[in-house]
Amino acid sequence: MTSVAMKYLKLGESGFDQSLSDMLSWESVSNADMQKLVADIIHHVRTEGDQALIEYSAKFDSYPVDSMAALTVSAEDIEAAFNRLDEAKQDALKVAAERVEKYHSKQLSESWQYTDELGVVLGQKVTAMDKVGIYVPGGVAPLASSVIMNAMPAKVAGVKDIVMATPAPNGEVSDFVLAAAYVSGVTECYLLGGAQAIAALAYGTQTVPSVDKIVGPGNAFVATAKAQVFGKVGIDMIAGPSEILVVCDGKTNPDWIAMDLFSQAEHSHDAQAILISQDAEFLAQVKASIEKLLPTMERADTILESLNNRGLMIEVAQLEQAIELINTIAPEHLELSIDEPESWLDGIRHAGAIFMGRHSSEALGDYCAGPNHVLPTSGTARFFSPLGVYDFQKRSSLIGASAQAANTLGPVVSVLARGELLTAHAQSAEYRIND
Amino acid sequence: MTSVAMKYLKLGESGFDQSLSDMLSWESVSNADMQKLVADIIHHVRTEGDQALIEYSAKFDSYPVDSMAALTVSAEDIEAAFNRLDEAKQDALKVAAERVEKYHSKQLSESWQYTDELGVVLGQKVTAMDKVGIYVPGGVAPLASSVIMNAMPAKVAGVKDIVMATPAPNGEVSDFVLAAAYVSGVTECYLLGGAQAIAALAYGTQTVPSVDKIVGPGNAFVATAKAQVFGKVGIDMIAGPSEILVVCDGKTNPDWIAMDLFSQAEHSHDAQAILISQDAEFLAQVKASIEKLLPTMERADTILESLNNRGLMIEVAQLEQAIELINTIAPEHLELSIDEPESWLDGIRHAGAIFMGRHSSEALGDYCAGPNHVLPTSGTARFFSPLGVYDFQKRSSLIGASAQAANTLGPVVSVLARGELLTAHAQSAEYRIND
Repeated sequence: MTSVAMKYLKLGESGFDQSLSDMLSWESVSNADMQKLVADIIHHVRTEGDQALIEYSAKFDSYPVDSMAALTVSAEDIEAAFNRLDEAKQDALKVAAERVEKYHSKQLSESWQYTDELGVVLGQKVTAMDKVGIYVPGGVAPLASSVIMNAMPAKVAGVKDIVMATPAPNGEVSDFVLAAAYVSGVTECYLLGGAQAIAALAYGTQTVPSVDKIVGPGNAFVATAKAQVFGKVGIDMIAGPSEILVVCDGKTNPDWIAMDLFSQAEHSHDAQAILISQDAEFLAQVKASIEKLLPTMERADTILESLNNRGLMIEVAQLEQAIELINTIAPEHLELSIDEPESWLDGIRHAGAIFMGRHSSEALGDYCAGPNHVLPTSGTARFFSPLGVYDFQKRSSLIGASAQAANTLGPVVSVLARGELLTAHAQSAEYRIND
Repeated sequence: MTSVAMKYLKLGESGFDQSLSDMLSWESVSNADMQKLVADIIHHVRTEGDQALIEYSAKFDSYPVDSMAALTVSAEDIEAAFNRLDEAKQDALKVAAERVEKYHSKQLSESWQYTDELGVVLGQKVTAMDKVGIYVPGGVAPLASSVIMNAMPAKVAGVKDIVMATPAPNGEVSDFVLAAAYVSGVTECYLLGGAQAIAALAYGTQTVPSVDKIVGPGNAFVATAKAQVFGKVGIDMIAGPSEILVVCDGKTNPDWIAMDLFSQAEHSHDAQAILISQDAEFLAQVKASIEKLLPTMERADTILESLNNRGLMIEVAQLEQAIELINTIAPEHLELSIDEPESWLDGIRHAGAIFMGRHSSEALGDYCAGPNHVLPTSGTARFFSPLGVYDFQKRSSLIGASAQAANTLGPVVSVLARGELLTAHAQSAEYRIND
């Protein structure tokens, strides 16, 4: 193992802004070959339906099957998977699901309506989507928490059909993942992965229903497919590698901070962990903790690669200078490991999730604090929000004009529509004047 | 002029579902040449900045300029454009802006926070985006209402910088459009069109600021560019041609209904106008009104092409059967030209805007009722919402765990994180147990 060589910057030093910008820079590669490959897979699923899914199961998941029955997980199978888990896991999943459900229930929007001074009834009717798709990656880690975080907001919104797709390499699917589906209201499950899963959910096949929106993380095939079906269905945000920004006043155990940085870095070689402090001595202590703890970690190679590629320590003169750095970085996860973190909230404009105080580890939010762990990455907290109930509700405007109101507003419509050269619009309102 | 030949279907007749599906079907063409052309334009603007914009102004807008000054509209120029309008237009713009502002103010989300039974502070902090871009097409019609509908929700959200881009073919820009910017809180304006305008707003140049989100309608270049910069910035929905679905019990003046259908059809040859009634005689009367009124219309050719391509009358046995048709069609605009339209609301799950009663013409909503006229098209009301204040606010999750709460929840995190093979996550929570 090579040694840890995290980048170290001092705010105010010459070239700081450019160095920070270089460190933060991340852009997904839009590969024309990948686009074409994914477009072909989508086309094949649209035209051949189930048969295409059966072919791809053998080809991409090394799981040859005769029929869609083998790619369909029944409600009984999902429940059975839960029952096979040990009690500690069952309980932990239930606690997480309940806490996530409770937090998200606060996000529910309600319809509203009022009558204005002209007698126009105006309002907004809020309804749940009918049917949504949740994609859950296969691969190394069985992402049970991902199932809960993607499905539960849909359940809370009142979505009737929550359809999960997850690949079963060699026919194997994790009980832990299915059990998470059990506690979070998933209503159907198919063993499908990659672009073919996204295509099936977007367009439907003989067996798989088409859904209104598809959410959930995935590899480049999945992300590309989601972008390609956007518009036919809704999708959640476009996610980059995960990141954490820890701001610490130097009074937290440096081992804790090192581990918090690791908990981000262990995700992938391009995950990003940043630490800001006004205390140079403390930064050195955290570096020592990193070097001490790293060899003990199961994912030490990934953590080392991530820290050396994209890890960053920033020394500031005054801790409060971190606030503008936070807004520049717009981090996915922000840990305020300081006294009185709430006093910072007013100044923080852009962050996916804010963890306040030394005991609020990011991991708590990843699993069971309550808020969602699907968060905007790579600075997109400037305009994206955490996944939430609002992602599964939609709104219809309500407009009810009395004869009197149509009479009063008709001339306004007439002037504006004629100004835009849209005379049918104008006449349609003019007919209702003096009626 | 050829004669009107709108399609006519009877619910329940053999082949109805397929015929309806065929009529509704619309898919944007994703053209590889267009994708490449737009990608090149974006790249050129990213690398050359202002200079690229100056080149494109000459090339695409027949407007050769020496510097960005000629492509920049000052606040004084915007105000002057408003002052040059006649009073009727000034007043109409002000009434529309005020009504739109008032309705949208009801959409503002507030931050919230609570402490749960374990002593965990949980919440959602809602903030406005810093800077957004509004694209306003040039072309035949000066879309003043489009400026109001796109800018006002951003203004109400509290966005500080609202940057408008609109092309100036031959250097000409409409006073009406600039005046609309004046009444709706636009803070900067550049005379830029097409993919180059979107690229400038997404990435910034020496003169044009980069924004967080870009909204507004546009041609295929604009739509393609918006899709390509999505992720770097937020964008609003992907819009298809405009459509209206009118449901009428036969008791509204058939001329009114014909004109309501025209007001959609006059937008473009692929706009869609659909009428449902249980009264075959009334449908025939509307057809007669269409034939009578069409020759008097300024955009008769476009209306005829639209009605003959995509126009549709549907006869149902019972008027209430229209409700399930509405949900299948998920129309952008829905006119309920019936008695007691509010009694239908519970059954209607998918529609962009619902116009209730005979006096509520769609045109009223297009200009000044208050709700937004940027609405989900082509059935996407199943998952998209009208443009609103919520499109310009974003959320940050808040999590503050006490030592006690970290102690209680730590074991849950530990079990779940270890189940997912993420041991740094687990340890980061375990450190905080029994502290």
